[in-house]
Amino acid sequence: MTNQLLKGKKGIIFGALDEKSIAWKIAERVVEEGAQIVLTNAPVALRFGKIQKLAEICKTEVIPADATNMEDLENLITKSQELLGGKIDFVLHSIGMSLNVRKKRDYTDLNYDWMHKTLDISAISFHRVMQVLWKQDAMTEWGSILALTYIAAQRTFPDYNEMAESKSLLESFARSFGYHFGERNKVRVNTISQSPTITTAGSGVKGFDEFFDYADKMSPMGNAPGEACADYCVTLFSDLTRYVTMQNLFHDGGFSMMGMNPKLIES
Amino acid sequence: MTNQLLKGKKGIIFGALDEKSIAWKIAERVVEEGAQIVLTNAPVALRFGKIQKLAEICKTEVIPADATNMEDLENLITKSQELLGGKIDFVLHSIGMSLNVRKKRDYTDLNYDWMHKTLDISAISFHRVMQVLWKQDAMTEWGSILALTYIAAQRTFPDYNEMAESKSLLESFARSFGYHFGERNKVRVNTISQSPTITTAGSGVKGFDEFFDYADKMSPMGNAPGEACADYCVTLFSDLTRYVTMQNLFHDGGFSMMGMNPKLIES
Amino acid sequence: MTNQLLKGKKGIIFGALDEKSIAWKIAERVVEEGAQIVLTNAPVALRFGKIQKLAEICKTEVIPADATNMEDLENLITKSQELLGGKIDFVLHSIGMSLNVRKKRDYTDLNYDWMHKTLDISAISFHRVMQVLWKQDAMTEWGSILALTYIAAQRTFPDYNEMAESKSLLESFARSFGYHFGERNKVRVNTISQSPTITTAGSGVKGFDEFFDYADKMSPMGNAPGEACADYCVTLFSDLTRYVTMQNLFHDGGFSMMGMNPKLIES
Amino acid sequence: MTNQLLKGKKGIIFGALDEKSIAWKIAERVVEEGAQIVLTNAPVALRFGKIQKLAEICKTEVIPADATNMEDLENLITKSQELLGGKIDFVLHSIGMSLNVRKKRDYTDLNYDWMHKTLDISAISFHRVMQVLWKQDAMTEWGSILALTYIAAQRTFPDYNEMAESKSLLESFARSFGYHFGERNKVRVNTISQSPTITTAGSGVKGFDEFFDYADKMSPMGNAPGEACADYCVTLFSDLTRYVTMQNLFHDGGFSMMGMNPKLIES
Repeated sequence: MTNQLLKGKKGIIFGALDEKSIAWKIAERVVEEGAQIVLTNAPVALRFGKIQKLAEICKTEVIPADATNMEDLENLITKSQELLGGKIDFVLHSIGMSLNVRKKRDYTDLNYDWMHKTLDISAISFHRVMQVLWKQDAMTEWGSILALTYIAAQRTFPDYNEMAESKSLLESFARSFGYHFGERNKVRVNTISQSPTITTAGSGVKGFDEFFDYADKMSPMGNAPGEACADYCVTLFSDLTRYVTMQNLFHDGGFSMMGMNPKLIES
Repeated sequence: MTNQLLKGKKGIIFGALDEKSIAWKIAERVVEEGAQIVLTNAPVALRFGKIQKLAEICKTEVIPADATNMEDLENLITKSQELLGGKIDFVLHSIGMSLNVRKKRDYTDLNYDWMHKTLDISAISFHRVMQVLWKQDAMTEWGSILALTYIAAQRTFPDYNEMAESKSLLESFARSFGYHFGERNKVRVNTISQSPTITTAGSGVKGFDEFFDYADKMSPMGNAPGEACADYCVTLFSDLTRYVTMQNLFHDGGFSMMGMNPKLIES
Repeated sequence: MTNQLLKGKKGIIFGALDEKSIAWKIAERVVEEGAQIVLTNAPVALRFGKIQKLAEICKTEVIPADATNMEDLENLITKSQELLGGKIDFVLHSIGMSLNVRKKRDYTDLNYDWMHKTLDISAISFHRVMQVLWKQDAMTEWGSILALTYIAAQRTFPDYNEMAESKSLLESFARSFGYHFGERNKVRVNTISQSPTITTAGSGVKGFDEFFDYADKMSPMGNAPGEACADYCVTLFSDLTRYVTMQNLFHDGGFSMMGMNPKLIES
Repeated sequence: MTNQLLKGKKGIIFGALDEKSIAWKIAERVVEEGAQIVLTNAPVALRFGKIQKLAEICKTEVIPADATNMEDLENLITKSQELLGGKIDFVLHSIGMSLNVRKKRDYTDLNYDWMHKTLDISAISFHRVMQVLWKQDAMTEWGSILALTYIAAQRTFPDYNEMAESKSLLESFARSFGYHFGERNKVRVNTISQSPTITTAGSGVKGFDEFFDYADKMSPMGNAPGEACADYCVTLFSDLTRYVTMQNLFHDGGFSMMGMNPKLIES
């Protein structure tokens, strides 16, 4: 299923950690489709992850960057353009981490310093990346910027805790910056709201397995796998979706539009 | 920009009238991408339109069918499978017509017999087509069904009149039938909510030109052209979007997510 | 809890059948709050129901009207104004019936004549009522029109069948007519999306009891009872909500905003 | 129009600055309706505002509290219960301020330290207040918590800048905490999305006057005034709306549901 849909396109992929990461699968797929990419992740993630292996598969380099640090991001965007030989056609933001979830704090007992860090890492980082791209005028006309999000931005999944707020914030940045990038550069900005996916990061969330099964039963097609998400990203980075912008796009086998699936109460 | 994304796929395209029709552009594009199609429209539309010319371009035939007539639709689906040599991979529904609009009736002075006809032609026809596909078990696994809609289904555009209701109804059928087709056949059903587009049908709506300009200014990227809509349909018929279902997808240059564009009041 | 919030207001209540009907509870509550009302229902419902008993409680009369018959509706609105001694301040539409559900037809095997009747009774009747009110200029300035709806208009509940489409259509009429009535008369038009409620009509829906329990567990506050819905209607008919219009208002204990309630998978 | 709808209820009102503040009008109205309240605002706002005058009108006291400071909030909730003689029935959060807007920074050139402060003041403060109420178990059963928000949380109004993100975040906190408070205390949490309103705070936003007129023309009823918002809050604090929770409620004369108002392109 490779059609060279992204032939000649240059991109930056944030957030690949290991083979289970959706960003990892996306990196592999966009390269299969003819894109050249740069990989990036936080220095600490680089130590624990296997991203160098991915860089080999994708015949590229890893440029470390803490997505909450403006100097790191400026360096990343500058170096990426040097390495890729021109402006950027697409960017994937797949970054999320909650300190309060990690420390098992209840939603009614949150630490606000940690919340600020969570929001910075998981959402404000998206504005930071776009602001650097904007100031360096680094996106090509008709380029495409995507971030991965989750339906907890619209509806309450109690165990998702403060990540719900992170995703609401992230999606708002997509809309707001989408206006500016659309007007100036015809660059589109969207979020993909993906089914729960078994990843190393995702498994930190309390009750994840039960919830994965619940979502799988609720969705007429079952949960969307990470590989299918990578396919979907290919279409959104391609030239076939140029006028889709400022949208939150559900990639979830129908979960978001279900009120109730009889399978759930048949047992 | 042809990648043979739809190579080997078989489809049915409803609603091409002339070169301005979005369905016409979609038919041309899917054939460019390697699909084989059957064209269909109402007998009366066939007389006035130029669909035979399109059939030549697409190297196919036209099977006339009144989309409110079950026998016609049964015949269409049976014949299409014979002609294409197998089950159907994708279907496009692009049908809409309002009798009350045509007869210039105000929204506060509607004729209800006409309203029933409008709803039947513009929305219930979509259920009819899907019900025939369902009963004949005519869709391949992982097939894709699409209908074109408009944002008047969510927000009020007074001149759009009872077509607002038609589109709300149409989108509801997509969700409901999407559940059934997803569960049984992994077939997805979605609607594309397209920018106002200059077509022979669209120009019947009162104040269309002023409105087209308004939408164009409101949208950060401007109104999405019909050609871009055809590109987008290609992705939604392809295997790259298998888990997107029961969604209403805005293809509108950002219009739907704008509250106000400063361009509109700068003058 | 009577504050005479509706003192001096005149209203019409459609759809009370028996004590379990939400419309029945609303009729009682608005009269407690000082309103004068007229009751109406279809001639056939009058024979089976106990609406005369309600008329006694409410010290009023019943004017029979088939909500799909324009002459009946014109007579109703004329007579109501005579009986109440002036224009109408508020109207409640609580009408819904699906022939295909009654005849136990699957959603993939619907009879389209019945669907047209279902839509006419359950949704188009709302436009008919408003069109008659409009033409007779029968609403007072700052009046309030309400219809009862259900979240199946937004999300799929398979057993709700074609009533999903009826409710989508109903809500669309509220938005569209809300524009016209707002501009001309400052009359507001809204829908209340109520929790599943045990009524004589509701119990016809397949799997209703299991679903009622599911919704009750999903909602942080549990399902909203009919009595609470009547309270909510009082606020929406009162002068305290004059600028709320064209909205679909969820009265559901939080159901609509829940993605998943851990109670559902604990058990 | 006083019905003593809030007789015996005890509340806390955040954010009244001067007579133009919506919170000011709400304070006056809830007292008219029989409630006892405590007023609070940031120490700095107390110096510039006229809140002592409001305290006299409302026969109450002002307890200063910086809504980003947990000790201040703990003191406020404790003292309020002492002063009012019991648990709290309702809370109004009407706090918003953007440092980047104040300093006239473009959305594509934001200072992130300021953004963090903006989010803390305008949105996280709402979680802080609710977390203190939760830990002190300070809300009565069936209590009501409200925050004022704006439609920029859903759609892009470029001049609103990072306040769009603040409001998205605020509304997400309402949903998430609404789940917890609903389950434990049957307390409801909602946001009111109010029309643009001429206040001392609002007038800081660039192009506010033009925008106010635009929204006024777009809305079938015109912009909702602050006084009407106060009326609406009364209903949401009363016992008549007990099952409305986790909702964002538009109080905007229909603006949110309009796609286009012909009045805008006529002249």
